[in-house]
Parts: sequence; C-alpha cells; structure tokens
Amino acid sequence: MCGIFGVTGLQNAAELTYLGLYSLQHRGQESAGIVSIDEAGATHARREMGLVSEIFSPDTLRDLPGSLAIGHTRYSTAGSSVLANAQPAVVNYHAGPLVLAHNGNLTNARELRDDLVRKGSIFQSTSDSEALIHLIARSDARNVEDQLLDALERAEGAYTLLLSVGKTLYAIVDPRGFRPLVMGKLGDGWVLGSETCALDIVGATLVREIQPGQWLKIEDGEVIDLPDLAPKRHRRCVFELIYFSRPDSIVFGESVDRVRRELGRQLAREHPAPGADCVFSVPDSSNAMALGFAEESGLPLEHGLIRNHYVGRTFIDPGQTDRMAKVRIKFNTVRHVIEGQKVVVVDDSIVRGTTSKLLIQMIRQAGAREVHMRIASPPITGPCLYGIDTPTWDELIAANQSVDEIRDHLTVDSLGYLSLEGTLEAAGGDPARFCHACFSGDYPTPVPGRSRSSKEPALID
Amino acid sequence: MCGIFGVTGLQNAAELTYLGLYSLQHRGQESAGIVSIDEAGATHARREMGLVSEIFSPDTLRDLPGSLAIGHTRYSTAGSSVLANAQPAVVNYHAGPLVLAHNGNLTNARELRDDLVRKGSIFQSTSDSEALIHLIARSDARNVEDQLLDALERAEGAYTLLLSVGKTLYAIVDPRGFRPLVMGKLGDGWVLGSETCALDIVGATLVREIQPGQWLKIEDGEVIDLPDLAPKRHRRCVFELIYFSRPDSIVFGESVDRVRRELGRQLAREHPAPGADCVFSVPDSSNAMALGFAEESGLPLEHGLIRNHYVGRTFIDPGQTDRMAKVRIKFNTVRHVIEGQKVVVVDDSIVRGTTSKLLIQMIRQAGAREVHMRIASPPITGPCLYGIDTPTWDELIAANQSVDEIRDHLTVDSLGYLSLEGTLEAAGGDPARFCHACFSGDYPTPVPGRSRSSKEPALID
Amino acid sequence: MCGIFGVTGLQNAAELTYLGLYSLQHRGQESAGIVSIDEAGATHARREMGLVSEIFSPDTLRDLPGSLAIGHTRYSTAGSSVLANAQPAVVNYHAGPLVLAHNGNLTNARELRDDLVRKGSIFQSTSDSEALIHLIARSDARNVEDQLLDALERAEGAYTLLLSVGKTLYAIVDPRGFRPLVMGKLGDGWVLGSETCALDIVGATLVREIQPGQWLKIEDGEVIDLPDLAPKRHRRCVFELIYFSRPDSIVFGESVDRVRRELGRQLAREHPAPGADCVFSVPDSSNAMALGFAEESGLPLEHGLIRNHYVGRTFIDPGQTDRMAKVRIKFNTVRHVIEGQKVVVVDDSIVRGTTSKLLIQMIRQAGAREVHMRIASPPITGPCLYGIDTPTWDELIAANQSVDEIRDHLTVDSLGYLSLEGTLEAAGGDPARFCHACFSGDYPTPVPGRSRSSKEPALID
Amino acid sequence: MCGIFGVTGLQNAAELTYLGLYSLQHRGQESAGIVSIDEAGATHARREMGLVSEIFSPDTLRDLPGSLAIGHTRYSTAGSSVLANAQPAVVNYHAGPLVLAHNGNLTNARELRDDLVRKGSIFQSTSDSEALIHLIARSDARNVEDQLLDALERAEGAYTLLLSVGKTLYAIVDPRGFRPLVMGKLGDGWVLGSETCALDIVGATLVREIQPGQWLKIEDGEVIDLPDLAPKRHRRCVFELIYFSRPDSIVFGESVDRVRRELGRQLAREHPAPGADCVFSVPDSSNAMALGFAEESGLPLEHGLIRNHYVGRTFIDPGQTDRMAKVRIKFNTVRHVIEGQKVVVVDDSIVRGTTSKLLIQMIRQAGAREVHMRIASPPITGPCLYGIDTPTWDELIAANQSVDEIRDHLTVDSLGYLSLEGTLEAAGGDPARFCHACFSGDYPTPVPGRSRSSKEPALID
Repeated sequence: MCGIFGVTGLQNAAELTYLGLYSLQHRGQESAGIVSIDEAGATHARREMGLVSEIFSPDTLRDLPGSLAIGHTRYSTAGSSVLANAQPAVVNYHAGPLVLAHNGNLTNARELRDDLVRKGSIFQSTSDSEALIHLIARSDARNVEDQLLDALERAEGAYTLLLSVGKTLYAIVDPRGFRPLVMGKLGDGWVLGSETCALDIVGATLVREIQPGQWLKIEDGEVIDLPDLAPKRHRRCVFELIYFSRPDSIVFGESVDRVRRELGRQLAREHPAPGADCVFSVPDSSNAMALGFAEESGLPLEHGLIRNHYVGRTFIDPGQTDRMAKVRIKFNTVRHVIEGQKVVVVDDSIVRGTTSKLLIQMIRQAGAREVHMRIASPPITGPCLYGIDTPTWDELIAANQSVDEIRDHLTVDSLGYLSLEGTLEAAGGDPARFCHACFSGDYPTPVPGRSRSSKEPALID
Repeated sequence: MCGIFGVTGLQNAAELTYLGLYSLQHRGQESAGIVSIDEAGATHARREMGLVSEIFSPDTLRDLPGSLAIGHTRYSTAGSSVLANAQPAVVNYHAGPLVLAHNGNLTNARELRDDLVRKGSIFQSTSDSEALIHLIARSDARNVEDQLLDALERAEGAYTLLLSVGKTLYAIVDPRGFRPLVMGKLGDGWVLGSETCALDIVGATLVREIQPGQWLKIEDGEVIDLPDLAPKRHRRCVFELIYFSRPDSIVFGESVDRVRRELGRQLAREHPAPGADCVFSVPDSSNAMALGFAEESGLPLEHGLIRNHYVGRTFIDPGQTDRMAKVRIKFNTVRHVIEGQKVVVVDDSIVRGTTSKLLIQMIRQAGAREVHMRIASPPITGPCLYGIDTPTWDELIAANQSVDEIRDHLTVDSLGYLSLEGTLEAAGGDPARFCHACFSGDYPTPVPGRSRSSKEPALID
Repeated sequence: MCGIFGVTGLQNAAELTYLGLYSLQHRGQESAGIVSIDEAGATHARREMGLVSEIFSPDTLRDLPGSLAIGHTRYSTAGSSVLANAQPAVVNYHAGPLVLAHNGNLTNARELRDDLVRKGSIFQSTSDSEALIHLIARSDARNVEDQLLDALERAEGAYTLLLSVGKTLYAIVDPRGFRPLVMGKLGDGWVLGSETCALDIVGATLVREIQPGQWLKIEDGEVIDLPDLAPKRHRRCVFELIYFSRPDSIVFGESVDRVRRELGRQLAREHPAPGADCVFSVPDSSNAMALGFAEESGLPLEHGLIRNHYVGRTFIDPGQTDRMAKVRIKFNTVRHVIEGQKVVVVDDSIVRGTTSKLLIQMIRQAGAREVHMRIASPPITGPCLYGIDTPTWDELIAANQSVDEIRDHLTVDSLGYLSLEGTLEAAGGDPARFCHACFSGDYPTPVPGRSRSSKEPALID
Repeated sequence: MCGIFGVTGLQNAAELTYLGLYSLQHRGQESAGIVSIDEAGATHARREMGLVSEIFSPDTLRDLPGSLAIGHTRYSTAGSSVLANAQPAVVNYHAGPLVLAHNGNLTNARELRDDLVRKGSIFQSTSDSEALIHLIARSDARNVEDQLLDALERAEGAYTLLLSVGKTLYAIVDPRGFRPLVMGKLGDGWVLGSETCALDIVGATLVREIQPGQWLKIEDGEVIDLPDLAPKRHRRCVFELIYFSRPDSIVFGESVDRVRRELGRQLAREHPAPGADCVFSVPDSSNAMALGFAEESGLPLEHGLIRNHYVGRTFIDPGQTDRMAKVRIKFNTVRHVIEGQKVVVVDDSIVRGTTSKLLIQMIRQAGAREVHMRIASPPITGPCLYGIDTPTWDELIAANQSVDEIRDHLTVDSLGYLSLEGTLEAAGGDPARFCHACFSGDYPTPVPGRSRSSKEPALID
C-alpha cells in the first residue's frame, strides 16, 4: 500500500507535500520521496528508506524548489524493500522529465515486463510502476495524453496515479477505482492526496473525489477533465474502510469513522456476547468498532489494552528475550479491567493470527475469566492483488483453517467474524461497488500464478 | 520528569533495561541512558540525546555487559537540554564506581550547590543530581549506607533513586514519596522501575511498591530493607495519576485507568453539559476521562479528534506554513462527528492554553455548533517544583486568568474544571496523602526564588 | 574520471573490490559503489555519495556476497553530482542482470541519447553509460557478445568497461585506448583494475594490460580473448601519466614515477632557472617532477610547501574567513626554506590558475626573493572530452591568456611550461600513440557543441 | 599527545579555532572539541569522538558564539578512548565557569587522584586533567591566579595549558617545557596554539613562544605576563622535532624541517651505506630525513614507497584478507625504483617494529637486492611519560632486543640508528635542554609503577 500526494500552483510545494505525506505515513513506512519541479522545469528529488520525519528536514526541503511537487510513501513488501523501488519515479523520455507516483498494483505487470524486456527495455527496479513508464515512453502517440492512454489501455489492475510531464500535473484513477484519491483547493493552487486527512493537514478544502475511470490534468492553474477511461464495474477496496485509511478521512464518499462504528454495531448484532462483562478494542485501529459494539450490545466499553506509540525502529533480540516481548513492546493489558472478567475483544481483522494469539495469551495472563473475540470483517481467505501487502494463501490463517479451528488456535472462548453482507452494508452505498476479493475470492481480474483448485475462487468480473 | 529502571541478577540486564526504558519513554524524551556493571565491577555507559529506540541497537547493547544495569529517560527541560545532563551519572569516588539515576527534583539544589562549590566541588552538569553525588562523596562516613544517609539528610524535595556502588543496587524513595517506584521479580533476579508497565514489558511479577521513606539494597540476589528515612507527611504527586503515568500502570497502589475514569465521572457530576449532543476526548491522555464523563452523563461517546502517532521529530517552518499546521500535524477532527453538533471536549489539564486554543479553533472549523470544554483536574496555578517540567507562573494561563477569562480566551461556550476535592477523591485513598501544589499552591517545601505576594500560596507542610 | 575494479572466482570478491577501490580513490571521490553477483546469479548493490572508506563497513560488505564483484569510484563533475549517476549500473534486460562500470566518456552520448529517447527509451540518470546499456538491451542480436558489439559499434569516444551478464565478466577497452586497464591473477581468481596499484593492494600479480581495442571475457575461471574491435589509431591519455594515475602504478606500460621524473628533467633542460637557490614541488603530485628538475639542474631540492592530508570534507565559511584560508587549509609554507631565497616551484599543470595564484602569494608572504614557476606539461588550452573533468574553454587560463599574461597574473618572476614534444618524449614509447588534445587541440573525435573558430583546433584523426 | 588552540578578542573565535585544530589534527585523532565563551560569559561546548572535519560544520560552529574559544584534539590512547575524556573540560566552580585544554601528562596523577578521592572528590573521566581542575577548585586562595598556582605547585610532569575563567584566557607551560606553545597576533585579537602551523592557517603573525615556566593571561585585549613558575631544568621533548610536530612548524625555536634534514645528514655521517644504489623515505614523516641523508651521502634520492592519503576509517577484516593488507592499504612500493637495487630506507623511528617488518617484506617482494635500514633517532627503550602515547616496555622492540636482533627480526641487510649525541646536536641549541627519556632512560621525574632494575634508568633531574 502507498500514500500519494501532489501540489501544483503553490510556492512551497515541497513543504506542503511533506505535511501531506506526514499525514499519509500510515499508508507506507518503508520509504518516502518527494520530487519537485522548479520554474525552469528541472526536477529535484529526494527518496530514501525510512519515515517521512526521518527523511526530510528544513535543509532537504529547501533543495526541492518549485511550485509543483509529487510525494509518495511506500509500504514495506517482502523481498523488494530496496531504495531502487522508492517513488516518485523520475525519468527523462522524449516528452521531457516525467515524475510518477503510483498507488496500487498492476496484475499483469509480469507480462508487461516480459514483453517490454523482449523489446529491449531495461529495468532498474522491481516495481510494477516501471513497466507503466516504459509503456508511456514507447507509445507512438504524438501528445502526452495519448501516450498515457496507450499505456493505461495495456495496464490491468489497480492504479491510482499522480504524474507530471513538464509542468502539467495529471491525476488518474483506474476504471475499477480500487484506491482513493481526492482533490482540494488551497489558495490559488491545487492539492491531491490519497485521503482527505492529507488535505486537512495543509488546510485545503475538499473539492471532489476523483471517481473510478476519471483523469484530469492541471495546467496553468486550471483543472481540465479528460474523457473517462473505458468504464468497468467499480471495485472500491472495502479494506480501505475497514483498516487501511485513517478514521478522520472521508474515503469513497464515506466517513471512515462512521463506517467502522457501523461495522462494530453490525458485529454486535451478528455476534453478541450475552453474558460478557465488558468490551474493549485492540487499539487503535479497532477503537471505533469496539465503541459501536458497546453501543449496540449495551456492554460497557473499557480500555483493556494500551498501545505504546513510541515504537519506532525497536528491535528485540529473539535469542535473549522471551517470545512475548514482541507483543509486549507494543501492547500492555490494564489488569483491573480484565482480572476475573468475561471480556469481549474487538479487532478489525486477523491476518496470520500470530499477534492475536499472543494478545489473547497476554489477556489471559491478566486474569480474564472468558475471552470472546469479535472481528469486524470476514475471514481473510486470499491475498490482495491490488496493492495491500497481505501474505500469500499459505500464511493466511483463514485460508487454511475453519473459524472453529482458528478459535481453538487463539484459545478464545468464542470467535465471531462479521459476515460479508454485514460488512458491505456497513460500508455504505451500493454493496456491488466494492472489491472484497480477500474475503470472498471474487477477484475482479485474472489471478496470476495460481492454477485453479477447489480452494481457489472463481474469477468473475 | 524522568523514568528510571534497574535490573540486578539477570544476565541480559542491559537488554531488559532497554525494554524497561522503552515502556517509560513517555516519562522523558530528551535523552536516555543505560549503565551496566560487568562481572569485574567495571561500568559501561551509553547516554545520548534522543529516544530510546534511536539510541540503542543490538550492537550498542552488546557493549553493555553485566548482570546489573540502571537506565534513565529524561524529559526535555528548557535551557538545559544538553548531553552533560543525561543520566545515569557515573562517577568514581573513594568507595568505587557509583551509578545514579534520579527521578524528581531537589528544591534546595541551589543552596547545596553553592555550599559545595564554596568547598571546592566542581560541577560538570546543571542537574541537581550532581549535588547529591558530591554530598555522598564528601561524607565522612565509613560505609556506603552511612554516606548515602549523610547526603539524603541534606537533600530537600523529590528524589526517587536507583543507584549502585560496586555491585550493590540501592532503591530509595524520599519520605514524602512524590515519585513512584515499584519492584518486581523476574527469574532469579530483581527489576525496579518507575511504573508497573515497565515490569510488565519484561514479564516481571510485581512484588511491591517502594513506599515513601523506604530504601533497600539488593546484594548477591538478596533484598535487604534498610531502616526508613525520617518520616514526613506523604505527598504523592496527584498529577502522576491525572496525566503523567501510563493508564496501564498501577501507581501509588491505584490503577491509573480506574482513577482517570473516576475523574471523568466526577467531572460530569460537577460540570454536566445538559444539552450537548456528544462527548469526546483530546486523545490519548484523556480517553479514560471522556469515557467516564460519557458513562456518568449519559452523553454518547464519540471520536471527534484523531491523533497522528507518527510524530517523531517533525519540524514545521513557521515562516512558510500557517500557524494551525502546528496542531494539525498532531491532531485532526472527524468532521461528521462535529458538524452541526453541540460537543463536549474533555481534556486532562490546561497548561499554557496555546494548544487548547488551536484545537478549539479546529473544532469550530469542523462545524461545531457549541463547544463545551471540560477539564478533569483543577486549574494549574503554579509550577511543579518536584520534577515535572511545568512552566513558571508567568506562562501558566490559570495563574494569570480567571476561569471566565480562560473560557473567553479559548472561545468555548462553557468551561468547567474539576474541583480539587473531586480530584483527590477520584484519586483514591486518603486525600491528605497527595501533593497538589500546582493546583492549590500548598507546596510541601519552601518555594525558592519567589518573594511572597498576595498571589502566592502559603507554604505549609 | 573514474576508477574501476573487478574480481571473479574469489570468495571474498566484495572485500577485495573494496580494497581495490580504496587504492583507486584518487580517480574519483564523488561516489563509489560495489555490485556483487552471488552464486544464484542475484545482484547485490551498494552505491553512495562519498568516499570508499565512508560507504563501506564490514556490515555492508557482508551484504555483498558472491565470488564476482565490480566496483567503481566516480569523480565529481559539475551539475550531475547525484546518486542516480553512481555506478556500477545494475539493470535487468532480456539476457538477465547486467552490471556495468564505465571509465571514460562517450563523445556522441547526446546523439545516442536523443535517438534512444525518440525510440521510447527512458533515462534515469544523466550519465552517458546509460545510453550504452540501452544500446545493448535494444540490440537484435541473439547472444550477449553480439549485443555488446552492436552497442560498441555505435559508441564514439572513451570507454574502458568492466561488465557482467549473468556470471560472466567482460573487460573492454575502446580502440583508441584512452583509459588504462590491467589484469592480475590472485589465487584461482582474476582481478581487473584501472591501475596496477589496485592489483598490488590485494596482492595480485600483474598478468597483462588490456590493450586498445581488446576485449575478453572470464567465464568459469577461464580468460577468453574475443576478436579485437575495429582498430583505430591509439590515443592513450598522456595526462594519466602527468597527473591522474598514482606514481606507484604502471600505466600504458610505463612506470608513472619514471615518466614524471623524466618530465622534471626535461623541464629543467627546456626551462632552467640559472640563478635560483633551490627547487621544490607543489606536493604531492609534483614531487617526482621536482626531484627530476633538481637532479638535472643541479639545484638543491627542498620541501618548501607542506600539504595537510587530513582534508576530508572541510568547509570554510567564505564570509567569515579570509580568501587565503582556502589554500592555507591544504598547504603551508616552510618559512626558513623560502625566506630571502630565489625559489623554483614545480607543478604538474595549471588549470584555472586560482590555486596557483594563491600559492604564489603564500610563498611571497613567506619571504621569497624571486619565484620561478615551472610546469611539467604544456599549457592546457582545451577541455578533455574523454573522461577527465577539466573545465570548459572559458575557465581554462591558458585557453584565454598567453604564457606572459599568465606569468603576470600569477605574479611570478618567470614561468616555463614544458613543450608538447618534451612531454611526449618523456612519456615514453611512440609519441604518436598519445591523446594530447587538451594541450594541442588535436581531438581524436569530433568536438560536439562548439562551432569552428580561429581559436578552435582542427579535428584530425 | 594532543593539540591545543585558543583565541580571544576575535568575533569568529570558534571558526578560527576550528581552522587551528584542523592544522593540529596530526597531534590527535581520537576526539576533538571546541568550547566558546559568549559575551554574557556562558560556555558553549561541542566535543566528540572523531576527526575535526567530521565533528564540526557551519551549523555546529554557529552554535559556538563568542570572541573567546579554546579547542583541543586528543590522541587515541589505549583503554580510555571514551567521550568522557574529550577536552576541553568545562566545569563550574566557585570562580565561575572554567574551561581547560591540556597537552601533556601529569606523572603524579595517580597520587593526586587518590588524595582528592579520599577528600571526597568525584571523577567523571580517567584523564589526568580532571585532577588539575579539582586542585584549582579546592584551593583556599581568594583569586584565580593563586588558585592556579596552588594547583600547579602540586602537579608534577608535563602540562601545557590553555584555560579560561570567566572571560580571561590563561596560557601556561610547565617549568620543564616538555610541550610547545606559541602565541600570535591576528587583527585586534590573540591566538595561541601548540605549533606555528596553527597560527599560519588563520593568518596570524608569530609573536613569541611561551617559554618553560612562563604563564600569562589575556584580559580585555591585553597580554599580561605573570611571574614565572619555580624554575626547573628545561626538558623540551626532542621527539616533537623528530616525529610529532609538522615540518612546517617552528618548535622550541627551531624549524622542524631544518632539524629533520640535519638528522638525516648526521645519520648519513654516522651510518653511511657505501655500496647502495639509492635512498628513499618511509613517507611522509621521514621525507626530510631521507633528503638530508641523500645530500650528505651523495646517494640518489628516490620515491620508493608511496603513501595512500585517503586512509580515513578504513577497516580490514583480518579473517578474510592476508596480513600484508594492513600495510598495503597505507603504503605501496614503486617497483622500478626497487627492483634489483641495493636500497637505503630511512625512517624516523621504530616503535614496535610491526609495520617496519611488513614494509621491509613489501620492499623485498618488489625485488630489492639489499635493504639497508637507517633510523634518524636512537632506539626507543622506554615509554614517554609526558604525553606521547608510546607503548610500555614490553611492547617496545628496542627495550627488549639489541640492534643486531632487531636487524635480524626486520630481515634487513644492515640497520643503523642515529646516536643520542647526534640526535641532540641536530636538534639545535643546547643539548642539555631536551628530554630524551624514551631513548636514554633519563626520566626527568620519578617513574611511577616500576621498580628499579638493571635495565631501568637512573632517575635524575
């Protein structure tokens, strides 16, 4: 997953981008970058491994002049955590310098890459975004927009893009609209970002969300809508609302906090915990869900787990300290809340189940009489192919175990997952507009590299 | 304010201390240090400016061998944020190497220092702890304990100490007991820390709290209680429970979360907000108070403010970005919660009022119809002289303005502070056992450097 | 200018490359890099701005496994001192991962680049080496060697290359042979480097110099000579012998120290300084020349200037300190050698004349009665187009002033430059085999970007 | 060994001190520090491990305001290479802030320390300078000068000091004058430094050398000579001239370059090498000596060894590379100079003999027919007790082997050491004024911690 941010028409573009990335840090902590385009059209880049606050300083921002800037935060994905993959990408091609920030994942990246390599393209990163750039550069079209179209017509999957050629800024969302993008106004300039929280931090006013298939360009201060890309059924990522986005953001037209509260309420309706004493969240991502659960169930809300926010780059030597230190460094129990109680623990989702198991153990050690786990989304039975770094089928606990088996594995007294229907209903709007492939196996694109099997989902779009 | 941690009798003492400091990071972010004592009695130190997670690494911990270690995290205090003040202090004196970590503040430090300097002592830091060490070193007593007693008899104010001489570890709490200290057992060794959360992170079991005036030594694996210091009226810092300690800790025998919930309830009783639509906290320190307020008042709890936890060393160039960016980088509003609503905002305290004013402005911009501010402690009318870095009288808003004036300054529709009686009652136990000088002016020790005036509190102990 | 180094068939390839680069640091201090290829054929890279000793550590070398490694040190060139230009380049193309280290400069880089860009290639750096890689990747040839040949046939200018495709190492020197390359044997493996000093530091034995137009590959421990590139008249860079290479190296079959000594002797024959009291060098590059001058002239050799070798990344604030500090930080005079004396100062060359002028001023301040400057090479009247970072015509003092004018500008009593004939003769071997374009204007390739003028040289090859 | 530098009366004192330390880097590479005193009398310090060029930057110098500054570079000494020992020391005592930079070594440091500790002083470093400060602070005298005198009367050994109390700068040289100190004038201010090269770099004019036993203070721009310390026989360190000081400095009234040239000449007279083909130095410390040897002997001077000056913090993994890499990284041979020749190698001294042995081996590998080693000083038979970090008796080769044994150990054909008489004569002035204890065993102070033995020198002063 990634966060992207762009500014045009404002003198301190790089500093605003810094603030924007700062508010999108939750979307990617592996690396971050800002590229600015100065008045003469020259690009200035800084991309590094690490957090936004570690990479940029007043000095480094001063080296990024110009009124147009694009920024990117990148999530850590196994095997490719290298500087070469940090974005925004900057290349020179026949139309001039091109800067690209990509949120999402191309599902046909392998094919595109193989084809490009056959034709003599060279690749300097392992990111799928590089294929996109080659397609643009190799297009025979005369003008930039046609080159972009040529490239996008061959791209399959998720791509929410901010890119600039010369001093023109483009914003593009793929026809299925997996990943969000919003536009705001600030003074005489324009600001684009993955979530509304990035507009808020710079004080911009939300103007509109870029809808699936829309693309626009901003040139000389004017926003021009270009003809929509060929339409496909919308597939907004429901996991953005469940987990990924910040609760203070509006995503896909919905208040994330509102959706999560409703997920909690729906969870209480589907899986109440009648005899329990209290309910608490695994902070912070499940706070709104636990509150919703409490409201609906009438159980008292408690703070049973506390999260340490000074985590940073903490390390633990596995040889020297016990296994539990891994989770203790991030969470601690509030003993008087838990001791002797029947508690309901609300979490947003279970991926591998490793942390959950340790958390439950910690809650047991604090003296819980009964532990009832409630998950405000369905079991994750497949990886995301569209930009979220979920593990493969092998590692996903719900792809390999039944709910009863998971309950036993976690050693909880009961375990309830929210139904897919309940999830989509709580997410608001038309339930058909969502991608929920990780829960349902209903992947909107062909699933590469996996032969059909009984366990595997049918591919429909 | 500071956090202190000590380990003895455990092979990976420095690594455990690292974890302990990690959980005490909230008590001080300016600098941190660990000193270990190896089998041969040699000391190994690492002290640096910055966060625990930045200062230590597997490599640096490997350079801190031994089964005894003492750690310290130090809070940023104006004017003296220098490496020379980082602790634990390590000195050589006639009884050998002495390592000292101090939480608290000596109120007669100036006099002690002046006297010592007159006698030819040299000072390399501006910390008051250095005076303590000189007193120990200059004692004529033969054995270490008598030297410590000589020194402590001359020290006035707050001192919770972990210190070692040779391979003996001492733990001392001043007779008034301003600052907390707890002891736990881990395997064959012993662990001491400012709060129970530091025992939890290493998996130690709480054995006891070190009470005011108690001191003990741990030698060859055995805990020996030494005769109590001359008794004084207990003066546990009530602000530890209100704000400073972690909610998952047990401090002065009370669950911090429990106390804060009760502070919120009491606040609702004293200052209800009858026509309001909802209540929310200024996260995270006031979460429990807002929950208590909601429970007692029957108002629905909301998450109206979201806190960005990736703050780190963020900078903002004041010349380039607007004044609001300062608060926006840390907080954002959840618009749909606030828009058109009459909201109650619960905070733990108001110091200068600067952040509160910006927060209220932000809440107004999100469309609040009415804003009712509720503070879960009394107005702060004086600085803390016992180790918390509150500003001087000049900067404390409540030392200079009435509640009505503050209400107008913050532009809230109503403002309610919890009474001192309500505060002490919620804090649990005997109300007379607390220090509440910052609220009441009832300083338990003489107040140095301030002439008596009508505004000034009477000094009673 | 750059230094390149390669190893194959030796377990600690990256560590040997580190040592090799270390000895080639004088050839480039802007950035350095090592790329290793492990047993599975995967590439591991580390490239950073800075010195070899700053970039690599035992830890970083451990992350560069494999028995094949290529290294590069890059010289600071104006305007493009960015990480993207650091080498070796690593790309993936249809034949697999390709690693390239390039010493030299392609004179038709602009045209190649324009043509490639027109065909849809994208450029991520401003280095001319990237064009070469595109040419290789776009070749229609089936096997790697034919692809290389396709690319090299289009490249004009200077290219001494070490490159690997898969686990095969290639070494190539362009047909004119501007830049040196030598091969040595170490145990069961092979070592290649820009100068013999790089073989010496790893303890390898010199096997041969790679001659102009030669290329070879090393595969499975065997060295295979490939058919020579189409022959051109040799044009070995005479400035390598005068200034660039280390005196302990053998370059183009000549001992650099021997050549420099002979340059000094010839200088004394052409421009004696009859009444002078002594001769000294501008250390360290002119030490051998001053010794030769002393031997031939019979004047006593002195150490009149001392060089501070702890220079590192020293900075001087131009606003605060005087102009002379710039040179004083690097050089100091030995007053008793100079005071009241008629001195001969020998330097290898004069580029802009800025440092020389300050040095002469410093020598005057030390009390010299007469200063006679002797330069052991001809006036530099044009830039190098083949990889040495000399400035453009505008900045070269000898491109704009006569020898008499330069003498007056430097305020020396006399100034003598070695003749081109004398230079070539001292350089050894056939005088016709050298490139001396920077002295003579006799550029072996077309000079891009400069219209013919009376001042400009005729282009002959 | 250390370098010290001080400035007073000049606005950019810290920047000048930075330049001064830069030129004194050869006197100590372990740590460096600058302390400035601003107009209000407050001290500002920066002390770190590492090189001057690594520690200071425009930013860090800006944080060192004021017109008075003292700087220090410290040599790496085994066992105490820690930040706590970095100087200048800054302490507060009853006369105010005291800043001290010390070059030299107190021979009674142990006793002073023991006595002070007994009286209750605490020590935070292992440096002997801390004892001096305690003595000053504990003096009963009323004014600062008397306090200094009290302290100095108890100090035995070598102490060349720059210190400030308030805004007064003091410069002190112990009565024996082991270590040099010079004063210069720059504009309206004054500059003090260990060697004249430090005056040269800032453009100051040499005013005088501070003679043994002299001390002075600079206050309000005026230099005031204070009454000399109780006189003792002068004992200037002859090794300063042989090795330690820079050749461009004037030390003890002598040109270091001149002295070294004369040492080389005298060496040729005492130990000629009649049948040899050429002579060369171990660069750079022996360059002048080799030149003198060549002049006197009539043998041709060559550059047979080249030194790599990019050494920095180079590391070599002893497990992976051969033993010779250690010396190869610093030196290389010039093969054509050596091959088949009978060579004379001139070095300034032999300490452990380890590097010499490897160098000789390297020269043999380059094909030398005969190797004749000539040392321009006597055998080092004892450690320096006065500030130079020579090893103990056990490690000094000449303390344990005869000249013949050393010759065999080094595998040279002949070995000649300069006589003590020859050394002192070449050093200039009165031979009786030098300390040559490391050669002669004639220690001017009692030798602590070593019982009398036949091998040990009689102690005379």
